[in-house]
Amino acid sequence: MAPWASPGAPPAQPQRSGVVTVAVDCNGADLGPAEVAAGAAIAARQGARVILFGPAAELGELPPEVQVVDAPVSIAKSADPASAVRATPEASIVQAARAVAQGAAQALVCAGGTGAALAAGTFNIKRAPGIYRPALAIPLPVPDRPVTLLDVGANAECRREHLVQFAFMGAALAQSVLGIARPRVALLSNGEEPERGSALLREAHAELLERTTGGAAPFAFVGNVEGGDVVGGTADVIVTDGLTGNIALKLTEGVSKLMLGAVRDAAMSSPRGRLGGLLLRRALRGFRDELDPEAQGGAYLLGMRRLGVVPHGSFTRKGFAQAILRAERGAREDLVGRTHRALEQAGALKQAPVSARAASLPHTG
Amino acid sequence: MAPWASPGAPPAQPQRSGVVTVAVDCNGADLGPAEVAAGAAIAARQGARVILFGPAAELGELPPEVQVVDAPVSIAKSADPASAVRATPEASIVQAARAVAQGAAQALVCAGGTGAALAAGTFNIKRAPGIYRPALAIPLPVPDRPVTLLDVGANAECRREHLVQFAFMGAALAQSVLGIARPRVALLSNGEEPERGSALLREAHAELLERTTGGAAPFAFVGNVEGGDVVGGTADVIVTDGLTGNIALKLTEGVSKLMLGAVRDAAMSSPRGRLGGLLLRRALRGFRDELDPEAQGGAYLLGMRRLGVVPHGSFTRKGFAQAILRAERGAREDLVGRTHRALEQAGALKQAPVSARAASLPHTG
Repeated sequence: MAPWASPGAPPAQPQRSGVVTVAVDCNGADLGPAEVAAGAAIAARQGARVILFGPAAELGELPPEVQVVDAPVSIAKSADPASAVRATPEASIVQAARAVAQGAAQALVCAGGTGAALAAGTFNIKRAPGIYRPALAIPLPVPDRPVTLLDVGANAECRREHLVQFAFMGAALAQSVLGIARPRVALLSNGEEPERGSALLREAHAELLERTTGGAAPFAFVGNVEGGDVVGGTADVIVTDGLTGNIALKLTEGVSKLMLGAVRDAAMSSPRGRLGGLLLRRALRGFRDELDPEAQGGAYLLGMRRLGVVPHGSFTRKGFAQAILRAERGAREDLVGRTHRALEQAGALKQAPVSARAASLPHTG
Repeated sequence: MAPWASPGAPPAQPQRSGVVTVAVDCNGADLGPAEVAAGAAIAARQGARVILFGPAAELGELPPEVQVVDAPVSIAKSADPASAVRATPEASIVQAARAVAQGAAQALVCAGGTGAALAAGTFNIKRAPGIYRPALAIPLPVPDRPVTLLDVGANAECRREHLVQFAFMGAALAQSVLGIARPRVALLSNGEEPERGSALLREAHAELLERTTGGAAPFAFVGNVEGGDVVGGTADVIVTDGLTGNIALKLTEGVSKLMLGAVRDAAMSSPRGRLGGLLLRRALRGFRDELDPEAQGGAYLLGMRRLGVVPHGSFTRKGFAQAILRAERGAREDLVGRTHRALEQAGALKQAPVSARAASLPHTG
């Protein structure tokens, strides 16, 4: 099927009661493939079924719910993931993506980086029908006010219709995987007024307003928010282009790290500071736990025919288990179908070119 | 003179030894005009000469270096500063900007918000010759690694040549006002490789590389930096469009506030936490002092025929004094002329349209 594939129903999803299997690429984790396998074992104990793709000899003993496909070849560190995916069919991420494309699994988890996951996903699993561009979404671990930011890097340049679809994709993620019944979705801008921002943002704002009025949309479009609102709790999903989103994400991480480091330095600066830090530690632990990115499972690759989750390479088994459980939940809750139906109802699916539609008529086929 | 004014020498600047006067709009500060006047008095004690524009009756007693022009009308809270500036010639900010335009003062300080300063500045003081767009620059108070970000909101959409000029404008600010001999200037992107980012960024990257190689440029272009580098100390000046810059600035402020709030909450959560906070307070004070935005004077309005400084409306007298001293230093060090010469040498000044150049020839004048 051509990459612009005519809109139609996405592939049938397993029912809630059906069995979901998650294909997991083990290569690329900082702590090695065995740590990912240990995460899979934890997820299996919580009901997940997993197929691991990695160096079988290194993965240790695993429960029966975790199958292993020996795939020692890794392209996780490749500087050009797109070429590596095409040139290395035996790579673990390519095999994992193919397993999802062929129906042996219903979701993909890749510990080997977003570049490889994006390339292997779009090449093998392909874009969902009617979707312009896959996007990367990150639930930011903001205490008391989690927010999902997308796109955080898949598309440095976006058009109006991309941002509009991202709003629906992010909302479906928030609903089906993060458990927010009616997400508040916003556009990231330099002011709350609809006329602020770039021409692109003004166009996307107008179209989102139009496509979500009447209340049929499964989310509330709350308009523009500013940079400070990313951690302000005013929206559950914040939409932006992949360049701005990537900058915002890394800046948030950078400032958090800087501030935590300063508190740590202060607590090491003198005996008095050390005692203060010790006394404060317990009260700060809850806050630090909430900031823990492992609890969010990682980044979500949306807009493909199946859900992909990309835990950070630095995660421990706890984070990998979470990524697998979230991926399983996304498949079980039919994230992809949910996105498709909402976009269809709003009239925001990509239309196939006329020539392609003609080509699919019986008399020409 | 037409707004696109043919490039030429900027207005003569006072010499280092010459006397510099700063025109200050007092209206708009949260603590009232008297707080700004108190800041002017502090700056005067450190050698500054000031003309205050505000409600004379409210400004209190002032040293002889501080003149007062009674200008009680404020447009600081106007929702449409551009129209307000045109419609209200008696407004304090308009009178202050006119004083600079007419040479009674050599720099502008406006406590009444960036919108009003930008409108009054561009309308009265006008763009410097050969400059495409004024820009707003903010020195971010990052402990141990201050960085100046621009544009933070004057231009939501930018072209290549705007970003290129911003690099020179930011570098001149860092040199003349912030005291960095040879600033490292970077572009904000989603990766360090020159091919990352948008088409706009790739074009600006290529042009900056071309215009700064050979070492003649008064700064080092260090290529692309990522969001985390904004607080990472890898560059002294970071250039971006006004939309991304505004988002980055407000996000930085939001995350800092969130983290400081969490530490404060932890220190209030229990007797144990309270004691810890108390013991830690002294060690954290230095860090908090360094984070203090008042020490940076505020935002800098670059690209006009004279320097403008916009302290935040929430500042105390300390911050207003700092804004005045920084404005004075910028005029004394010839920030505007420095920017012009560097752009001229790099061939990056805006060329007047051919018809305008013809119009300025003697036989047509």
